[in-house]
Amino acid sequence: MIQPITLHELVQRHGSWLESGVDEGPVISSRVRLARNLEDYHFPGWASEEQKHAIWKQTYELFSEMDDAFMCWKMESLPDTDRELLFERHLISQELANKEAENGVFVSPDEMMAIMINEEDHIRIQTLKPGLQLKQAWEAASRIDDQLEQQLLYAYHARLGFLTSCPSNVGTGLRASVMLHLPGLVLLEEMDPVVNGISKIGLAVRGMWGEGSEAVGNMFQVSNQITLGKGEEQIVNHLEQIVLELVEHEQNARQRLLHENPIMVKDHIARSFGLLAHAKLMASGEALNLLSTLRLGLDLGMVSGFSRQEMDQLYISTQPAHLQKIQQSELAPNDRDFVRAEMLRNFMKRATLKVEQE
Amino acid sequence: MIQPITLHELVQRHGSWLESGVDEGPVISSRVRLARNLEDYHFPGWASEEQKHAIWKQTYELFSEMDDAFMCWKMESLPDTDRELLFERHLISQELANKEAENGVFVSPDEMMAIMINEEDHIRIQTLKPGLQLKQAWEAASRIDDQLEQQLLYAYHARLGFLTSCPSNVGTGLRASVMLHLPGLVLLEEMDPVVNGISKIGLAVRGMWGEGSEAVGNMFQVSNQITLGKGEEQIVNHLEQIVLELVEHEQNARQRLLHENPIMVKDHIARSFGLLAHAKLMASGEALNLLSTLRLGLDLGMVSGFSRQEMDQLYISTQPAHLQKIQQSELAPNDRDFVRAEMLRNFMKRATLKVEQE
Repeated sequence: MIQPITLHELVQRHGSWLESGVDEGPVISSRVRLARNLEDYHFPGWASEEQKHAIWKQTYELFSEMDDAFMCWKMESLPDTDRELLFERHLISQELANKEAENGVFVSPDEMMAIMINEEDHIRIQTLKPGLQLKQAWEAASRIDDQLEQQLLYAYHARLGFLTSCPSNVGTGLRASVMLHLPGLVLLEEMDPVVNGISKIGLAVRGMWGEGSEAVGNMFQVSNQITLGKGEEQIVNHLEQIVLELVEHEQNARQRLLHENPIMVKDHIARSFGLLAHAKLMASGEALNLLSTLRLGLDLGMVSGFSRQEMDQLYISTQPAHLQKIQQSELAPNDRDFVRAEMLRNFMKRATLKVEQE
Repeated sequence: MIQPITLHELVQRHGSWLESGVDEGPVISSRVRLARNLEDYHFPGWASEEQKHAIWKQTYELFSEMDDAFMCWKMESLPDTDRELLFERHLISQELANKEAENGVFVSPDEMMAIMINEEDHIRIQTLKPGLQLKQAWEAASRIDDQLEQQLLYAYHARLGFLTSCPSNVGTGLRASVMLHLPGLVLLEEMDPVVNGISKIGLAVRGMWGEGSEAVGNMFQVSNQITLGKGEEQIVNHLEQIVLELVEHEQNARQRLLHENPIMVKDHIARSFGLLAHAKLMASGEALNLLSTLRLGLDLGMVSGFSRQEMDQLYISTQPAHLQKIQQSELAPNDRDFVRAEMLRNFMKRATLKVEQE
């Protein structure tokens, strides 16, 4: 069924993928995306408005009839800020946010599942889980995929597998990715070799908001590149194995930093603490970078007073569209920087810098 | 008379030119320097060791016999850090600090008067006063000049005036200068035209430690360039007049900043506050710049908890040689940054950021 909910209500809550911390350490979340298309229609890039409308209608009816509740937004009905808000929450892609008609998204109430309609492919199922839970994310995506497949005729080729708009997704249509916080490797300037190494084994490293986004706040998304010639389980297992290695690298880097130059690490954390607690203006990029250092401080036991989940939510809630939704008004960039700084100062009131007295 | 005092005792106190604040606002201190040479000797750059020794001996005896107490340091007896310490306190020039023999300095106990021997000239009298007190500084310099002239035969030419090692000082041998804190003009990026304008009327703008020093911490020394063809009083009056104009420019700049972009000013001050209160490592250049902003905050009533004099003393006491003297040990640059940050954090414990709640 479709559950009506305003975006204003949505920003009052936090996606469950941030609420229930599973892992401590560098892993933020795990995500799986499945690309699917319908047999009797052109891919969205070539389909007529009528065809896209038919697909939207079919899927809307399908979700309406499901036992589980889904929220639903059609892009054409949303102002820019609202689309940006869904993007900031990782519920839709930038590509969908830019589309004009007959496309939208169905989202589960816990926000751990989002199905985009008429993005690059007719259907893109994505599931998101806190911590390193790639298998669980894959299973959840697979379940909804099975449900949809019972009602829809997927474009499927016996030899190639699932057919997709972009050849790079043909086969499993699967992209699995993990968001990692790697400040230790960045501080030691070891991310470049890591990125190179990962590229060579068929994985990609991207920024916090996926393809084309910069790695602000030391946040990196690692994902599979190859979707063909490998089973889903194999893809997921391979990624998980590499992520575990990356986690070990990062933990090593942090230990080395603490061993070789503890004062530099403390200074780094203390400065971020001081700026977050006092600044009157704060751009979103700077906020992400300072929050990254604060998170490192929390992981290292140098900062206390709040949970990892509360702090991770700030990565989302300090973004431009969220800020404006919370303020219930359109804000010029300078005004956003003011409101963002205020939000961060309020958050920092409960924070304690444990290295203060050393 | 000569009063024996160790440099360790010296760093425990603060020069009186910082202790008694006369002006509020941008003026830190006023200084006058008189260059004098003795008739029967080559200038120090050309004089033999014997000649320089004779000059040192004569002046030492002269100061020993005076009623007033003077501290005395001969450069050759001082390790590098101690020379640097006198330089940081504005008691000697970098040139004197680098000299090897038969040169030194006599300093009054309140540190408002320092007479360098065998620097570029045989005798350089300098007087320093808090705030805008150029006339008082000139009168003080003139008094000691008269005292010395009773016992010494100055090199003087009826038409040219006092003869000096460098032709640029011939005539009065007078350089008057005022140290100004001009963060408003710097923030508005209006210092370049000001510096150009000042150069055109025969004045020079330099950094905090005089010739060749950079303008860190928004501190500028404005001084006369011309020493010939003008009376002392005329030189001093002209400089004072220009300084008053500069002060007005600076106050205007601050008002404009507060009027046009108060949040930017508050953010600037709050960030400096946060960094000074939390950083674990702090280089001396950064410290000067952050202290400059803190001082602006104090002037604008946005920061409280300490006096202007206490804060101005930090400009001196956080410098490398002072830090090492206070710690009573030689420190590597990184260790100095650690100790400096600690000193600043301790200072900041009594500071309050009044804009915190706005």
